[in-house]
Amino acid sequence: MKESWSSLDNFEPNFKPLVVIELAKNTKEETREWLTRRIMDKKANGGAQLLVKPLVTENGDQNIYLVGASHFRLLLGAETVGLVKECTDNSMRTFTYSSRKTFKDFVDDNHSFLTIAECQYIIKHELENLRAKDEKIIPGYPQAKLYPGKSIVRRLLTNGILVQIFPLHDQEELKKLRHTWYGRVKIGYQPLDEIRCYFGETIALYFGFLEYFTFALIPMAVIGIPYYVFAWEDYDKYVMFATFNLLWSTVILEVWKRLCAVMTYRWGTLLMKRQFEEPRPGFHGVLGVNPVTGREEPVYSSIRRQLRIYLVSLPFVCLCLYFSLYVMMIYFDLEQWALDYHKENESNFSSLMLFVPSIIYAIVIEIMNRIYRYAAEFLTSWENHRLESSYQNHLILKVLVFNFLNCFASLFYIAFVLFDMKLLRQSLATLLITSQILNQFAEAFLPYWLQKRHKKRMKKMYSQKTDTDLSLVEQVNLEKEMGTYFGTFDDYLELFLQFGYVSLFSCVYPLAAVFAVLNNITEIYSDALKMCRVYKRPFAEPTANIGVWQLAFETMSVISVVTNCILIGMSPQVNALFPDSKMDLILTVAFVEHMLLAMKFVMAFVIPDKPRDIQIKLAKLEFESLEALKQQ
Amino acid sequence: MKESWSSLDNFEPNFKPLVVIELAKNTKEETREWLTRRIMDKKANGGAQLLVKPLVTENGDQNIYLVGASHFRLLLGAETVGLVKECTDNSMRTFTYSSRKTFKDFVDDNHSFLTIAECQYIIKHELENLRAKDEKIIPGYPQAKLYPGKSIVRRLLTNGILVQIFPLHDQEELKKLRHTWYGRVKIGYQPLDEIRCYFGETIALYFGFLEYFTFALIPMAVIGIPYYVFAWEDYDKYVMFATFNLLWSTVILEVWKRLCAVMTYRWGTLLMKRQFEEPRPGFHGVLGVNPVTGREEPVYSSIRRQLRIYLVSLPFVCLCLYFSLYVMMIYFDLEQWALDYHKENESNFSSLMLFVPSIIYAIVIEIMNRIYRYAAEFLTSWENHRLESSYQNHLILKVLVFNFLNCFASLFYIAFVLFDMKLLRQSLATLLITSQILNQFAEAFLPYWLQKRHKKRMKKMYSQKTDTDLSLVEQVNLEKEMGTYFGTFDDYLELFLQFGYVSLFSCVYPLAAVFAVLNNITEIYSDALKMCRVYKRPFAEPTANIGVWQLAFETMSVISVVTNCILIGMSPQVNALFPDSKMDLILTVAFVEHMLLAMKFVMAFVIPDKPRDIQIKLAKLEFESLEALKQQ
Repeated sequence: MKESWSSLDNFEPNFKPLVVIELAKNTKEETREWLTRRIMDKKANGGAQLLVKPLVTENGDQNIYLVGASHFRLLLGAETVGLVKECTDNSMRTFTYSSRKTFKDFVDDNHSFLTIAECQYIIKHELENLRAKDEKIIPGYPQAKLYPGKSIVRRLLTNGILVQIFPLHDQEELKKLRHTWYGRVKIGYQPLDEIRCYFGETIALYFGFLEYFTFALIPMAVIGIPYYVFAWEDYDKYVMFATFNLLWSTVILEVWKRLCAVMTYRWGTLLMKRQFEEPRPGFHGVLGVNPVTGREEPVYSSIRRQLRIYLVSLPFVCLCLYFSLYVMMIYFDLEQWALDYHKENESNFSSLMLFVPSIIYAIVIEIMNRIYRYAAEFLTSWENHRLESSYQNHLILKVLVFNFLNCFASLFYIAFVLFDMKLLRQSLATLLITSQILNQFAEAFLPYWLQKRHKKRMKKMYSQKTDTDLSLVEQVNLEKEMGTYFGTFDDYLELFLQFGYVSLFSCVYPLAAVFAVLNNITEIYSDALKMCRVYKRPFAEPTANIGVWQLAFETMSVISVVTNCILIGMSPQVNALFPDSKMDLILTVAFVEHMLLAMKFVMAFVIPDKPRDIQIKLAKLEFESLEALKQQ
Repeated sequence: MKESWSSLDNFEPNFKPLVVIELAKNTKEETREWLTRRIMDKKANGGAQLLVKPLVTENGDQNIYLVGASHFRLLLGAETVGLVKECTDNSMRTFTYSSRKTFKDFVDDNHSFLTIAECQYIIKHELENLRAKDEKIIPGYPQAKLYPGKSIVRRLLTNGILVQIFPLHDQEELKKLRHTWYGRVKIGYQPLDEIRCYFGETIALYFGFLEYFTFALIPMAVIGIPYYVFAWEDYDKYVMFATFNLLWSTVILEVWKRLCAVMTYRWGTLLMKRQFEEPRPGFHGVLGVNPVTGREEPVYSSIRRQLRIYLVSLPFVCLCLYFSLYVMMIYFDLEQWALDYHKENESNFSSLMLFVPSIIYAIVIEIMNRIYRYAAEFLTSWENHRLESSYQNHLILKVLVFNFLNCFASLFYIAFVLFDMKLLRQSLATLLITSQILNQFAEAFLPYWLQKRHKKRMKKMYSQKTDTDLSLVEQVNLEKEMGTYFGTFDDYLELFLQFGYVSLFSCVYPLAAVFAVLNNITEIYSDALKMCRVYKRPFAEPTANIGVWQLAFETMSVISVVTNCILIGMSPQVNALFPDSKMDLILTVAFVEHMLLAMKFVMAFVIPDKPRDIQIKLAKLEFESLEALKQQ
């Protein structure tokens, strides 16, 4: 078996495997041949012009293929996907093969000009854009219909012939990354540029945001500690704390946009032109003519999609929301029962019982969130969105609304219906801490443990070796069994809910920020572990910002202005300032709230989204392209 | 004199004068020669390659030049400025000379392919982009320094050598336009496409917005009338009216964006690429290197500008706001005095006297607005903004804040401090109607009358002729004395304040919409008259939307949600619903207000800014350009 690989090695000495294609076990020979031929075919013949090698596993199956490409091919691919790279004059420019000499670090035999993540992204792009020419079906599978222009890989995926495509880890690089990232205990920034080189911009940006958000929470945490230590409840300092919090949260979200622009400018994605979006893999419909491209492809009437959204998805979401509220009411019954129980037989056990309902509720919330998540994915997929971005937006909207209600409804109920600040603080603390523990466990440690067990079993088979000593076959077999990382959605969602816990009721529980900071520090490590050890390496995805999450966080910070103003208005200290008239109190609170909201909007408007030097650099590029157009 | 022109005519039979350049009376001969040579010089030699003819007036002065261009030159210019035109396949594309045959209505000898407004815009663009090569000074004026790349025309303007540049009216076309626009009394839409062809997109868009806004106000007016006729004050129908108003104002602003996209797509400006913005004429500074262009040009430190803004402009604006409030308090004293007077000696005269303070105040407001406008222009110009757009934004912000306070402070005071709904209604009516009358008078009829008198005097000199019979010399002499139209700023401002009167207190005075509709119908006619008869023809300015005014109107509609909710909360009818607790009332009102605001934002988010077919057309163009890029 070792030989079979080395014989391939001899065949093309420069071949470096980058991406793995796993076909179904029983794939027909003619399909395999056709696919490899199409992938290796010249561009001029409609192929992808990549290198493919079969990988023979021990049981003789030949269902795994390694894909690579020559350096020249990758450079051409970099031009196709529109990568932006730094030039020798320190400006960022879209890479073209003809102007390759003007780019920094470009030497013809320097194969590190493109990062491995970029090479893998290019190969993925080329594979996905391998399109049917005159084939009507996939050879060997008459039921798998093709039409000119249809992406072959996507058809293979939807028909189950192709099991998965994933990029290979690079053990050398991964070891280096792991070392600088979380290998030693240190206070300092994460190696975001290295993370970006290895995992791509989307994931690097998530870790950048996580780190930034943690740092941004530190002032809140620091200011919050004395409130807890000195039990500053008798003072009106809560107003100051809340005001600071509200303005601070606006500032940090605005400053993040600027930092994000700085990072993505350096990485080149800020300047990358948006590619034309192809239909997402799951999209189906009757064959028609796309009005935009003029190509023949499946079309699905927008009215039918709207009907599905408004007549099925919307009622379903409302039903789920209702169910979530119903569960909340059960929780309050339980809470009442626990209180009664504690009153009746006061003991250590009964006082411990007081916490049980909250903990159960926190666990139930987590479970409901996860179940709802699957339902939302199913529904959104059934809505049959043509574009991945539209699918994502509808999914995020559905999940956000439900998670928001599910997590915060009980707190709102306690705060604004029961008016019980003590219970609010207790519930907030229980919910926050329980959900953090559950998340850390379910997200990283459990998969890590499972993965470790699996790895051990595998290693036992291949005798005792360390990671770097594994042969390629062993490595591929190990990695193809690893879990798939489904994107940053869950990670951002967790941060979003955490932001809610910290800011919505910040004036009641200043300590929340402290817990958030502590959680985030371990989160950085457990997420890093998850990326490097637990999951299959994900494909890099160029991106210029955190997208819809920016809007979600901003919306949360607007809502928290309202909740905090009401909470402060309800506090006995503030009430004491208006002994004569409740009306004056409410009017004052409403006035302050409107001023704060106005201030937020003015601040968001006044703080520029990009730092001045980035603005100048962008203007310079625009000016140059206009000048170039004039010269033509 | 007639001969001198016809001799020029012989010289170039196709010459059609489009733009007039007026030099100062005592301009030196060498300057004149140099300027005409530079304008006529070939592009390759750094000239503008336009046609120039001197126009000899009766007193022998040769300080007026007519500028035209060959058809071929104009087509090349259309490519330079990036005009977008309709193709034979009904798609809109950026015009290029090489692809001219693919455009609709293009025949080589068809000179109406470009509208006159476009031709004049092209000539203006070419003149403004006529740049100094190796000249260090303007010949004949050693104090007028030049540096390579400096716009010659701008230097001539700032040194007073060039008095003005303006496009000529086309009497034939103007007559046709006037006829279809306001020549006959008719119910129907304005000929926006014709207006756009003659005056350009900015002005056509203003009239489009004015018309749309008037139509949009009609439902409000219709619903408002029965409230007045049947004196529906005893009912809670005001709540319904206000709610309808608030949602309606969101809808109309969103729908306008869609309509605007439809119009500007048809006109091609939606697709026009933004040109690189040159420094505005008044900008000065020490010679340095522009970081964007790398050219040597005046630079002015951004910190000094910020200091001027925050240390001088901001305090000045605050002072003006304070002064405006001070004047308001005097008005209330006067009002009180009038009331006392009426009580003491009740007579017809004294009851008439009751209206006098309001009318005086309305007039004072108008005067203060106008004086402040000059101060704001002076200050913003002194702030030395590099770009015209930045200058405009700072000017608009200054003027909007002051006008808002100046016009509405007294109403806010009456409503929320005095709680006098009767006085509020009376003041609102007086302010609205007085300001409308004043505006119509000051804006159109006064200038029209002055212009008519001037024209009569001129015509007496040139014997009795109608407009179309005037010789070119007479026409130029007539037009150069006409007032200059300084853009749509004042017109939009008027509409903005009107929108404030209608929406801020709509639930107190539903009849405001009726007055607004009536005013706008006459406004359309008086503004049309103003454009066609009173002012010099303005240069066309391509634009894709109404810019910052969209934001201003949206902000106003947000503020009006707040004011209307408070007003409704204060009404005795709503108070009667909560007999026991004022607190419940206020909380309910606050809750409803927040729901309405949330609904507004969701609506603004859900309604797409562009209609589906425009979206598809834009996507199609983007797809094509991406495909074309790939082919390269």
